[in-house]
Amino acid sequence: MNELELIARLTRALPANASVVTGAGDDCAVLDCGQPGRYLLFKTDAIVEGVHFTSQARPEQIGHKALGRCLSDIAAMAGRPLAALVTLALPNNFSADFIERIYTGINCLAQRHGVAIAGGETTRNPERLLLSISMVGDVARDKCILRSGAKAGDALFVTGELGGSIAGRHLEFEPRLSEAQWLAAHFPIHAMIDLSDGLAGDLRHVLRASRVGAELLGRAIPISRAAKLQARAESSSKPPLLSALGDGEDFELLFSLASSHAVPLLDGWKKQFPELRLSCIGRITAEPGLKLRDKTGIRSLETHGYVHFA
Amino acid sequence: MNELELIARLTRALPANASVVTGAGDDCAVLDCGQPGRYLLFKTDAIVEGVHFTSQARPEQIGHKALGRCLSDIAAMAGRPLAALVTLALPNNFSADFIERIYTGINCLAQRHGVAIAGGETTRNPERLLLSISMVGDVARDKCILRSGAKAGDALFVTGELGGSIAGRHLEFEPRLSEAQWLAAHFPIHAMIDLSDGLAGDLRHVLRASRVGAELLGRAIPISRAAKLQARAESSSKPPLLSALGDGEDFELLFSLASSHAVPLLDGWKKQFPELRLSCIGRITAEPGLKLRDKTGIRSLETHGYVHFA
Repeated sequence: MNELELIARLTRALPANASVVTGAGDDCAVLDCGQPGRYLLFKTDAIVEGVHFTSQARPEQIGHKALGRCLSDIAAMAGRPLAALVTLALPNNFSADFIERIYTGINCLAQRHGVAIAGGETTRNPERLLLSISMVGDVARDKCILRSGAKAGDALFVTGELGGSIAGRHLEFEPRLSEAQWLAAHFPIHAMIDLSDGLAGDLRHVLRASRVGAELLGRAIPISRAAKLQARAESSSKPPLLSALGDGEDFELLFSLASSHAVPLLDGWKKQFPELRLSCIGRITAEPGLKLRDKTGIRSLETHGYVHFA
Repeated sequence: MNELELIARLTRALPANASVVTGAGDDCAVLDCGQPGRYLLFKTDAIVEGVHFTSQARPEQIGHKALGRCLSDIAAMAGRPLAALVTLALPNNFSADFIERIYTGINCLAQRHGVAIAGGETTRNPERLLLSISMVGDVARDKCILRSGAKAGDALFVTGELGGSIAGRHLEFEPRLSEAQWLAAHFPIHAMIDLSDGLAGDLRHVLRASRVGAELLGRAIPISRAAKLQARAESSSKPPLLSALGDGEDFELLFSLASSHAVPLLDGWKKQFPELRLSCIGRITAEPGLKLRDKTGIRSLETHGYVHFA
């Protein structure tokens, strides 16, 4: 049983109550806690030594990554982060200095995005460091963007460049909070997700939740320099397009909106975020399934995103 | 450096914002997220195999304990739990059946207290199971009870019986949510905490936050049957009073209120919760420090509560 099958089994019948607007299955849980006009966003995310980072990572990067992953999920709902709690499970050989430097990474990123670190706890995990972040945020009720709203005919967009994140970006990415808030404020975005499992894998989450399909344009997919370098360096390596489709931890935004908004969006984006690429990479189709169109024609895409328990 | 020193160093200068009413240092973080008349409570708590439970524990008990610890912290603020997220870090040899039974324990307790399980995540932790719960709850602004409100002259109360929790209660305790809500609704409680580190240790947290001292009455401290049995079974074991003072994980409520309310409280409690003992165990003093009065006189209490990294 892989992770997705286990999660499906576990989330089949979870206890609910009147506060839950959207439970398991989106980037964040969405709660109605009685804030006038707003929903609460609630998210938790853990990173583990040897799984999500190696002993080569600087402690500041480890803290940055842990908090950044949660912030990226708040961004995916076009939300505003409010406060986070830090759970630090420490190995036997922890040094206080190392832990303080992790907090430096957390605190710097938190300050940049106005999120409070409201506490947390430390416990033991003898063999390896585990760092889990819990976060609450909020969003205007009419601006909360789920995975489930994609419609046939929508244009598909992605921010930044994809693939090869393992070369370094996975430890230093900037969560796309202001970009997501700008998108939600200016355009009727139908569905959005942050790219953590890889373009193909995360797009499948959107398609499943929205009960639609998609067709990607191979030559429109923005490939990162890291993915290209990686392909050149290792002769056995996969082509860079496959890296862009399958590598995890890009932490870019993938979203869809009616194609009539595509040109105004690209114009507005260029003025607002001149340094960050925005690419139209395909369209949503009524027919289910994920297809890739390239020079050789159109074919079903079998590439899976990164699955933690493959 | 022990855990308390490390936490003190880490929490010295955490990023804050306008949403934070009370950050690190109470049972839950208290946030103002714009709910009219209410505060949001935010808490995270992790349990680790070999630290908080052994491989002898039934998986349902592990799930119960993880969720129950968070619920107990919500109770300590007189709050109402709303929703939880489950972070499951799975060892290499995990069985899906074992994990499902953990969820059974979580879900049963969640249903009993009306808290939703709004999602979560699974990740890997090769050597041992780690289970972390994040929880949001809320509380009326004028009923939120902090650790910092104890006043000289207050009477000190504790629910239930203390000590010897390791014999089984730490896996099966019922969080005192309805008791705490009833207390806050009917009496002006000054300060409250749930007993996780042991009576002496947790009382010290209240005294430090409130800048007061306390005098405990040795013969008034309710000692559990498990602590008495333990003392009888092992000749080398500590006296049961020391178990009641120092053992962790009782998950009972410790609170203070003006002594003029002590008799009406005991009367009202007996009618409302006839099955659960409530004991007046001493009083808050203006002079700092923790003292114990027993047959032999009055002396300073050196007993520390359980400290995770002693």
